[in-house]
Amino acid sequence: MSSLFRPCIERMSGYVPGAQPRERPYIKLNANENPYPPSPKVLAALRAAVGETLRLYPDSMATELREKIAERHGLSPREVLVGNGSDDLLTMIIRCFVGERQVVAAPHPTYPLYDVLVAMQNGRMRWVDFPEDFSLPAGLAEGGAGVPPARRKGQARCLPHGPEGGAGVPPARGKGQARCLPHGPAARVTFLANPNSPSGTWIEPEAIAELAGRLKGVLVVDEAYVDFAEGDCLGLLGRFPNVIVLRSFSKSFSLAGVRLGYALASETILSGLVKVKDSYNVNRFALAAGVAALDDIEYMRANVAKIRAERARVSESLRKLGFSVYPSQANFVAARRATPAAQAMRDALQERGILIRSFGDPKLRDWIRISIGTVEQNGLVLAGIAEVLGRK
Amino acid sequence: MSSLFRPCIERMSGYVPGAQPRERPYIKLNANENPYPPSPKVLAALRAAVGETLRLYPDSMATELREKIAERHGLSPREVLVGNGSDDLLTMIIRCFVGERQVVAAPHPTYPLYDVLVAMQNGRMRWVDFPEDFSLPAGLAEGGAGVPPARRKGQARCLPHGPEGGAGVPPARGKGQARCLPHGPAARVTFLANPNSPSGTWIEPEAIAELAGRLKGVLVVDEAYVDFAEGDCLGLLGRFPNVIVLRSFSKSFSLAGVRLGYALASETILSGLVKVKDSYNVNRFALAAGVAALDDIEYMRANVAKIRAERARVSESLRKLGFSVYPSQANFVAARRATPAAQAMRDALQERGILIRSFGDPKLRDWIRISIGTVEQNGLVLAGIAEVLGRK
Repeated sequence: MSSLFRPCIERMSGYVPGAQPRERPYIKLNANENPYPPSPKVLAALRAAVGETLRLYPDSMATELREKIAERHGLSPREVLVGNGSDDLLTMIIRCFVGERQVVAAPHPTYPLYDVLVAMQNGRMRWVDFPEDFSLPAGLAEGGAGVPPARRKGQARCLPHGPEGGAGVPPARGKGQARCLPHGPAARVTFLANPNSPSGTWIEPEAIAELAGRLKGVLVVDEAYVDFAEGDCLGLLGRFPNVIVLRSFSKSFSLAGVRLGYALASETILSGLVKVKDSYNVNRFALAAGVAALDDIEYMRANVAKIRAERARVSESLRKLGFSVYPSQANFVAARRATPAAQAMRDALQERGILIRSFGDPKLRDWIRISIGTVEQNGLVLAGIAEVLGRK
Repeated sequence: MSSLFRPCIERMSGYVPGAQPRERPYIKLNANENPYPPSPKVLAALRAAVGETLRLYPDSMATELREKIAERHGLSPREVLVGNGSDDLLTMIIRCFVGERQVVAAPHPTYPLYDVLVAMQNGRMRWVDFPEDFSLPAGLAEGGAGVPPARRKGQARCLPHGPEGGAGVPPARGKGQARCLPHGPAARVTFLANPNSPSGTWIEPEAIAELAGRLKGVLVVDEAYVDFAEGDCLGLLGRFPNVIVLRSFSKSFSLAGVRLGYALASETILSGLVKVKDSYNVNRFALAAGVAALDDIEYMRANVAKIRAERARVSESLRKLGFSVYPSQANFVAARRATPAAQAMRDALQERGILIRSFGDPKLRDWIRISIGTVEQNGLVLAGIAEVLGRK
């Protein structure tokens, strides 16, 4: 039976989301969820959505919510498309622009789902290493040249999908290089998460604008974490018809459980994305939550301010504990320390009732990522880390 | 910019869902929604789901709901996968099994989304006409033979995706035949909606079992309407490892607005589907609604009984009004009458505040499809039709 699967599906692994263990009530700082509840106005709107109308399909085009989003950003509703989380929009983008064996580019390390989506489409991933300061890699706009340019720091390198081209964790170089396309055709889609995950780092919009102008394909600026940052790339939308900006209600609006995100792009781009959208991709609760959340944006901003203040405190405390901490513009911090191994630190904290994230990717072996929680939760995770390090 | 799209996306049209006009409060009998509200126990569970936990991602694997579903059907939770509506599961199936230029078969006419999903994947659709009695078309298991068999009634015929292979309404024969694959490679996936839409007709499970045994690829039995029917195809699951049965909470459970469906299949099949599933494809409300709905299955059954009784009455009344009415096992009836044109009938009823469905497909020009409503709603639609026909 397994031979019925497409070969690209057969050899791929799925995306592995942050663990959701249930043995005990954990302090959950492993999936970049918001420690504060959704706005009381959102909860009231959700209660009001419980009723007889649930027997009817939701508005296929999310008209009211798209109007609210357009108003928030000074755009037309025709420049807004709503998804079942921004993952749903990433899927639409891949299906619209990437055919079999076509190339998608992204810096590395970043959100591993990009790679998984490319593998599903039997596309080819071109990874370009971030430089050490996590600024924009110079090689991201390469490809399509035909002749491999001289290798230099920060240029495209090949990280294929494993021995047979399957997705998952990019392996160390040396295996399966045949499928490697560092200097082949131009990328159909380039993904750039800004702020990036898992680093939390930030690239200035002007540098991204310069990239957008050089790319032949679509540039997706994934702004899932942007409400925690000091700027955004909305200014690129009018200037570059190949740019898609993605947003999420999961993080800053504390609505990971309702699944809601949106894409902002030109009408031309969205006219294609809507063709591959599930007819009723967003349910009535998510639509109601989105409208109410945008009506109470001050609530979100107040939570963001608390999280940003704590982010500074957690970053500083981790530095004092001997970690290298990346400057974060997101609702988490990434920190590196040679010992103990990140996996061991994660396990030791889980024993203490606290979940943080470590990574299977060999390049991230010494990375931990900690979502910013409440003041109390952050105190507990810092105390736990100090204890594991024998500093207490 | 439009040249950035894959050619298959460029030329396709999206699926067009049932209209949702809002100018006035319509009696909405055009999308096979249930006229009765969800169970009070479901509404209570949804109210209970409104709270602080919405800040957290939902259970990626829908553990509790899959256990309930497995219990309902006497299966293992490992034989159950949950989707954001059964449309989400149809997408997963296409992405798992159908590569570019590969073939998908389905009888015609049926749920037009199958065609749209195949076009997105740049696959090829092989339509096989239903015989006039809407029994299983003999040609559905054909393909892979190489030599075209002699043409006879009910055999595979070609209905390509329009002049350039785009999806949408299958055109009348004669255009674009080059892309036609009636006797080419075996279908990777065969879709069979049972009860079928828009006909509402029913095929005996034993006939489908015989088909499953003959197919080289996957057989998807789409049971979105099965709770209104006199049987189901669950008995095929243990016998045929290539069978996937799809179910929906939208119709019988009155939950179209929450988006929830599921697939039942072998562990082998589901191990592939889960790889292409969005990590958090079903939100916390849909998960809660599903669990509560299965805890109050008597409520659903009572509504189904009312709808079945009304289905008999509406069918009989339409026959008396001069329509040919297909024997329906679903929550709608399909009826044909030469005059007035179906589109004109639909428009005349809309003017009277009642929405029914007509179709762009040329083969369905004289078809109307009416969802079964409450006793009162059905009386109004029948009176409206009689009035349009001048019988009143």
